[in-house]
Amino acid sequence: MGLAAGYKAWLITVGNEVLIGRIVNTNMAWLGRKLTLLGYKVVRGLIVPDDLEEISWAFREALKSGVKVVVSTGGLGPTFDDKTAEGLALALDSKTVLNREALKMIEKKYKDKGLELTKHRIKMAIIPKDAKPIKNPVGTAPGIYVKIGDTHIFALPGVPSEMKAMFEESVEPFLKKIGPKIVFVEKFLKVKGLPESEVAPVIDEAMKLGNIYVKSHPKGAELGLPILDLHITASGEDLKRAEDEVNKALDYLREKLAAKGGEIIEHKKH
Amino acid sequence: MGLAAGYKAWLITVGNEVLIGRIVNTNMAWLGRKLTLLGYKVVRGLIVPDDLEEISWAFREALKSGVKVVVSTGGLGPTFDDKTAEGLALALDSKTVLNREALKMIEKKYKDKGLELTKHRIKMAIIPKDAKPIKNPVGTAPGIYVKIGDTHIFALPGVPSEMKAMFEESVEPFLKKIGPKIVFVEKFLKVKGLPESEVAPVIDEAMKLGNIYVKSHPKGAELGLPILDLHITASGEDLKRAEDEVNKALDYLREKLAAKGGEIIEHKKH
Repeated sequence: MGLAAGYKAWLITVGNEVLIGRIVNTNMAWLGRKLTLLGYKVVRGLIVPDDLEEISWAFREALKSGVKVVVSTGGLGPTFDDKTAEGLALALDSKTVLNREALKMIEKKYKDKGLELTKHRIKMAIIPKDAKPIKNPVGTAPGIYVKIGDTHIFALPGVPSEMKAMFEESVEPFLKKIGPKIVFVEKFLKVKGLPESEVAPVIDEAMKLGNIYVKSHPKGAELGLPILDLHITASGEDLKRAEDEVNKALDYLREKLAAKGGEIIEHKKH
Repeated sequence: MGLAAGYKAWLITVGNEVLIGRIVNTNMAWLGRKLTLLGYKVVRGLIVPDDLEEISWAFREALKSGVKVVVSTGGLGPTFDDKTAEGLALALDSKTVLNREALKMIEKKYKDKGLELTKHRIKMAIIPKDAKPIKNPVGTAPGIYVKIGDTHIFALPGVPSEMKAMFEESVEPFLKKIGPKIVFVEKFLKVKGLPESEVAPVIDEAMKLGNIYVKSHPKGAELGLPILDLHITASGEDLKRAEDEVNKALDYLREKLAAKGGEIIEHKKH
């Protein structure tokens, strides 16, 4: 796809509630989108329960793979089953310590509300040694940042409003700075009346036209006619060139699919 | 949690569209819920791109772990980047072959529509040797079932309507038959006015009351008052006993949280 090989990212979700299906993993989709638009290539997603061994397994795997960026969500709160800090420390063959900066952040949050620091609140300031806290402008639990070799790890809370605020305020500017000078272009095409298997050979040909990627997504049928979404993407250092490649593929798909009897019913942003 | 250790399940999602965040992974949540209600314990979720090595890595990891059930979604269609069958074969140290039964299923689908079998359509009948096709009552791509040792692997398409129909028609009855005789009970409690860190010690105590699990989910705030969802679950062979344990914990939580000034604003099903 022309995406810089050195800019791979992994996403980790910590939480039983995701595995038992009580919560749909919107965090991972949101982060996947963000990282992709920043030019990173998200190559793996892991979802693990609130279990120390499982959490450390996930971070360890990511470190082994030498991936550039790891973003985790969940497991940073004050309850007994918030174990991301400890699991991360385990993966780093390190230990958790009370972080003064994190403690100050938490202290301030509770002082503002007239609440005292309890054991459970202090717990949120206990992060891996050598890690740095990430400010949480919405909730109380700080995030965790640690760099090991060339891998940057960001652990964010699972509450979407907190996760998003922290990502946009602290993580995104940093990722932009260390990230690829790469743009990502995508366009969509909706085709009605052709089964995916009929469209497949046309996609094969379109893919040969340039450094692009075409993926088809069946979207059910309307009055017995199958509907297919085509997603055409390109990325590279040159915006103009990436756009040209996507447009060339789009034109080719439109022409060939219409010739096969397909109806192009929409080609706006998805 | 009292869940039979022998009934662990993994979920695998195949597809770039999930990793780049173009699609929210509702399939995994739906399957996680289904498996949990069937008494299985979903212990890991993996999301991999449409890449042969990555797909085979996911299945290989699942097999290594000796998990009872693996359900994958995605990568079974007719296009070049549908690689789940091949990735699965690779993980099994096997190869893919044209499966007569699968071919018949596909042949019938297209014949009904007056369409011929093309290379791309026949591709959907090429599955790992020793695997069996799973009937697709909605779309065209058959699923794949294969048993290796004590591990049952089900590969289903990524289109939610097809995946759900196939799961309910073929996979679920089978999982019931081979599954644990276990029930899963859950109840919810909504608490307003107490920060999670204030509720945490009460949860610690409630957890000691029985073979139950309590998880808190911060749900933002209303007029400055934090709202917290509590999710209380129990499972076991005895429905009555599991219900009693959940209810005992619920009563304890209601009483202690009210004493701390929390307002119980709802305790119906989530």
